[in-house]
Amino acid sequence: MKTRAAVAFEAGKPLEIVELDLEGPRAGEVLIEIKATGICHTDEFTLSGADPEGLFPAVLGHEGAGVVVEVGAGVTSVKPGDHVIPLYTPECRECPSCLSGKTNLCTAIRATQGLGLMPDGTTRFSYKGTPIFHYMGCSTFSNYTVLPEIAVAKIDAAAPFDKVCYIGCGVTTGVGAVLNTAKVEPGATAVVFGLGGIGLNVIQGLRLAGADMIIGVDLNNDKKEWGERFGMTHFVNPKKIDGDIVPHLVNLTKRRGDEIGGADYTFDCTGNTNVMRQALEASHRGWGKSVVIGVAGAGQEISTRPFQLVTGRTWMGTAFGGARGRTDVPKIVDWYMDGKIEIDPMITHTLRLEDINKGFDLMHAGQSIRSVVLF
Amino acid sequence: MKTRAAVAFEAGKPLEIVELDLEGPRAGEVLIEIKATGICHTDEFTLSGADPEGLFPAVLGHEGAGVVVEVGAGVTSVKPGDHVIPLYTPECRECPSCLSGKTNLCTAIRATQGLGLMPDGTTRFSYKGTPIFHYMGCSTFSNYTVLPEIAVAKIDAAAPFDKVCYIGCGVTTGVGAVLNTAKVEPGATAVVFGLGGIGLNVIQGLRLAGADMIIGVDLNNDKKEWGERFGMTHFVNPKKIDGDIVPHLVNLTKRRGDEIGGADYTFDCTGNTNVMRQALEASHRGWGKSVVIGVAGAGQEISTRPFQLVTGRTWMGTAFGGARGRTDVPKIVDWYMDGKIEIDPMITHTLRLEDINKGFDLMHAGQSIRSVVLF
Repeated sequence: MKTRAAVAFEAGKPLEIVELDLEGPRAGEVLIEIKATGICHTDEFTLSGADPEGLFPAVLGHEGAGVVVEVGAGVTSVKPGDHVIPLYTPECRECPSCLSGKTNLCTAIRATQGLGLMPDGTTRFSYKGTPIFHYMGCSTFSNYTVLPEIAVAKIDAAAPFDKVCYIGCGVTTGVGAVLNTAKVEPGATAVVFGLGGIGLNVIQGLRLAGADMIIGVDLNNDKKEWGERFGMTHFVNPKKIDGDIVPHLVNLTKRRGDEIGGADYTFDCTGNTNVMRQALEASHRGWGKSVVIGVAGAGQEISTRPFQLVTGRTWMGTAFGGARGRTDVPKIVDWYMDGKIEIDPMITHTLRLEDINKGFDLMHAGQSIRSVVLF
Repeated sequence: MKTRAAVAFEAGKPLEIVELDLEGPRAGEVLIEIKATGICHTDEFTLSGADPEGLFPAVLGHEGAGVVVEVGAGVTSVKPGDHVIPLYTPECRECPSCLSGKTNLCTAIRATQGLGLMPDGTTRFSYKGTPIFHYMGCSTFSNYTVLPEIAVAKIDAAAPFDKVCYIGCGVTTGVGAVLNTAKVEPGATAVVFGLGGIGLNVIQGLRLAGADMIIGVDLNNDKKEWGERFGMTHFVNPKKIDGDIVPHLVNLTKRRGDEIGGADYTFDCTGNTNVMRQALEASHRGWGKSVVIGVAGAGQEISTRPFQLVTGRTWMGTAFGGARGRTDVPKIVDWYMDGKIEIDPMITHTLRLEDINKGFDLMHAGQSIRSVVLF
């Protein structure tokens, strides 16, 4: 069949809207009509050429929602007509990682996914006879795409595609980091570094978890209003305070009778390795947990004195918010439908596929929280 | 009263055995006759002058066992004749840290303890009218010493002082790191870097927790026999393998059907920041926990790529094995008495107080696991 898609032919160049050939689903695969897709910083990271594992030409996009059109042999968990969200972190429920019960990082198709291929080692997309790589196992910048069954989460059919597509990455990453990775409890104190889309979703995850004090940190004062919209209780602009941000936050998070201070939980949503260190060191002696969510540039490292760990701080990280895709993503869609989390105000721009490059421009200019492309 | 003690008058000099004046216990304090004390690397670290917080003149020693002689006003939890272990990490059960239920790092007397003083800001020891500092709130290199009630653990009166004194630091640090900090479960795989006293106690903690694979790593082949004595199942000498230690360990810890490898738990017992990094990176993608136990040199830092955390590894640390002193230390003494853990073979040397400097010499020469001084 044919599909309209935005193709990344080369690093650093705009996407081109072309018609691709798409093979139907093979055994264990699912053909999906994508109805909406978000544009994420990770797409931008790869398109820019900075991603050392980036492959071209490829159909980017990994934050979509759509409808099952056709299933391959042996597919039992979804059927044509089902509404679904593609999963860049699949959930096979059979590999050592899934069976460990300790991680969401399913390894069933890790090797081929990283090579831009379907699990059988081939691509379904081609352009004038040339294979086009898949991206993060999703390739949602295409009106139709093929995914392995284990990378498809069936969701509530009443959920609006142009909103819940954001659950395919950003919402789940932020909310999940709070609930699955840090396991924040009611009454906790927390600091969120970086109030972009991920940071705002961490904030609403903290609100959902019942945190008492939710401090947002950003260099841009305009983010104060954004953070407060989703439950932030305090805002700190590191440029507007006297002295270093770490003692400032440690002092701000002192509870009655506590001479030490520091947040119970801190989250880095910046990708800046210096900020990751600040986040660790602003967490509470004895029990503070600091979660790295942001993706650092290639080769960059984090550092601290081991004394920070020996005195009881824990440094951890999260990918896809620690969420098991087929189990947890439908639950997050239900939370949205029930009003427990918000998405609508974060979708600042809605574009047609032809205008997808404008979505990247808005991101570069810092003018969007999330742009969503409709097909 | 008078007490015989080994005093550190100056950094870098041998201890001197002298008779000190010792004031009796004030309100909330306890006078203890020390019957035995271990010599720990931390005493050596301070005596050498490398400890930036070291104070002189001081009575060092923090790993003792003895008998309560007299209690000050208001003391209710111990009485004369009780057998006790002094605690350099007290347990007040009233401060925000104790009440958090999340840490053993009681903060009730942290400030004065760090200054070598009793909680009221004075010393009980003096020599020819000059005050002598307390050390880690214990000063067990003295036949008699005074401690706050909250820093005294009452233990089984049948336990031999010359063995259970080691529970005052080394045993609890190693065994506790496994049980309280890492919370190792039966069937786990683990790597222990550094097979000194702490490493051997981590190994026996892993055996107690039911770990399947207990890998010891040391540059000294003589440590193989020591590790096996306490439950080590595999020994790796980094100098005797081809290539880097991290991929070697990752490969060695692959379970059936697991293509990834890495240990469920790793422990640094070296204090070497490069080894701390290796320990983190040899832990399993998705769920590996790496615990820093060793104390690094002043100013040294640990580093890694944040990708190690984002893909599910957790970097943590432990002090006094995460043990709440008054609650957990008596339990560990009971385990020793019940044969669940071993101590006797680790006490390689027993000395008289007059020979305490020989204990430091044995440590320097790498000839002791633990030297114990008797009064």
